[in-house]
Amino acid sequence: MKVGVLGTGVVGKTIGTRLLGLGHEVWMGSRSAHNETAAEWAAEGGDGAGHGTFSDAAEFGEVLFNGTAGASSIDALTAAGEGNLADKTLIDVANPLDFSHGMPPTLTIANDDSLAETIQRTFPYARVVKALNTVNCRVMVEPSRVPGDHVVFVCSDHPGAKAEAGRFLMEFGWTSAQIIDLGGIRAARTTEMYLPLWVTLMQKLGTADFNIALSR
Amino acid sequence: MKVGVLGTGVVGKTIGTRLLGLGHEVWMGSRSAHNETAAEWAAEGGDGAGHGTFSDAAEFGEVLFNGTAGASSIDALTAAGEGNLADKTLIDVANPLDFSHGMPPTLTIANDDSLAETIQRTFPYARVVKALNTVNCRVMVEPSRVPGDHVVFVCSDHPGAKAEAGRFLMEFGWTSAQIIDLGGIRAARTTEMYLPLWVTLMQKLGTADFNIALSR
Repeated sequence: MKVGVLGTGVVGKTIGTRLLGLGHEVWMGSRSAHNETAAEWAAEGGDGAGHGTFSDAAEFGEVLFNGTAGASSIDALTAAGEGNLADKTLIDVANPLDFSHGMPPTLTIANDDSLAETIQRTFPYARVVKALNTVNCRVMVEPSRVPGDHVVFVCSDHPGAKAEAGRFLMEFGWTSAQIIDLGGIRAARTTEMYLPLWVTLMQKLGTADFNIALSR
Repeated sequence: MKVGVLGTGVVGKTIGTRLLGLGHEVWMGSRSAHNETAAEWAAEGGDGAGHGTFSDAAEFGEVLFNGTAGASSIDALTAAGEGNLADKTLIDVANPLDFSHGMPPTLTIANDDSLAETIQRTFPYARVVKALNTVNCRVMVEPSRVPGDHVVFVCSDHPGAKAEAGRFLMEFGWTSAQIIDLGGIRAARTTEMYLPLWVTLMQKLGTADFNIALSR
């Protein structure tokens, strides 16, 4: 499948590389058409890999991943172009974290709203799915890094897009039992608000290779 | 030990009854000295049980539990009296939940602050410990209701109070491996911000007898 990955940081690169390994064609999008990180990633990625502007990547992808920093996601998606997002599944793995006030981080959007809801409101023709944002990017694409039946959460107002996101998650290695459907996109605020605890636990445990499981 | 439990709701009653069962003397405090729920609870509780105003219960207790609703905790503690809180371990299990805007609940204090931090700031001579607020009250006092090595979190600026709270948790049945020390009271915001996800999961799972475990 043709996938556009927005963002050239560790999240974008990790997701992009994993998608290539699964046989997808991947374009990485960034602010500039000549981003060195993206160019290097695409060169290493071989035949299926490309790179360009946010708009180039969004146009290329039949499915899109938002792997940009939460604070700049709206700008990145605006640059991608509303028309290039329309009717596409947009899997938002970002978190609106703000580390400028020390630890734990605050969220730039919280409590009665979320980044994913903001994206869905701003780009109403995109089919936004919040997913995977509660784990480190290496765990996102390789859940077996962490033992046990730990879980991730998905939510969306678009059932078809949620199902498509679920298929990508299962390609990454998540089992259906590990994927918890929280309902509509409004639930994204609950998973984003978990992040301050996640960051605190990461510091406490000294590793990002952890996750939560549900005991019941 | 003499314990004051503030709040006559299901949280206060559940904690109070468990403490009585463990051999502690417990006074339940409420807004009025003649609260029917508290009087009934104390009558059922037998010799070790008493009830009175917030001030009566706080004066009685060598250790205090805040089991009031988060939105009224500051009022309740103000009524308890600063002098009755001074130098005492105050175990805050409350959450500042607001269900008035639908599901998931919002928090009346969130992101860059928390109820526990507000309590500590407002009553600087109390030794506030945030604990147990991430599970249902029946799980708080009987963790074996949920299978597995699920966890709870404690944080406080007062190491001695944190250790005392930990001893109560272990009396309730939590093992030391299940009690995660998140550091100072500032970390309370991270556990309170988990509550919208907790409530969403409770609805999804159809039970409050669940908790999170850490996979690593």
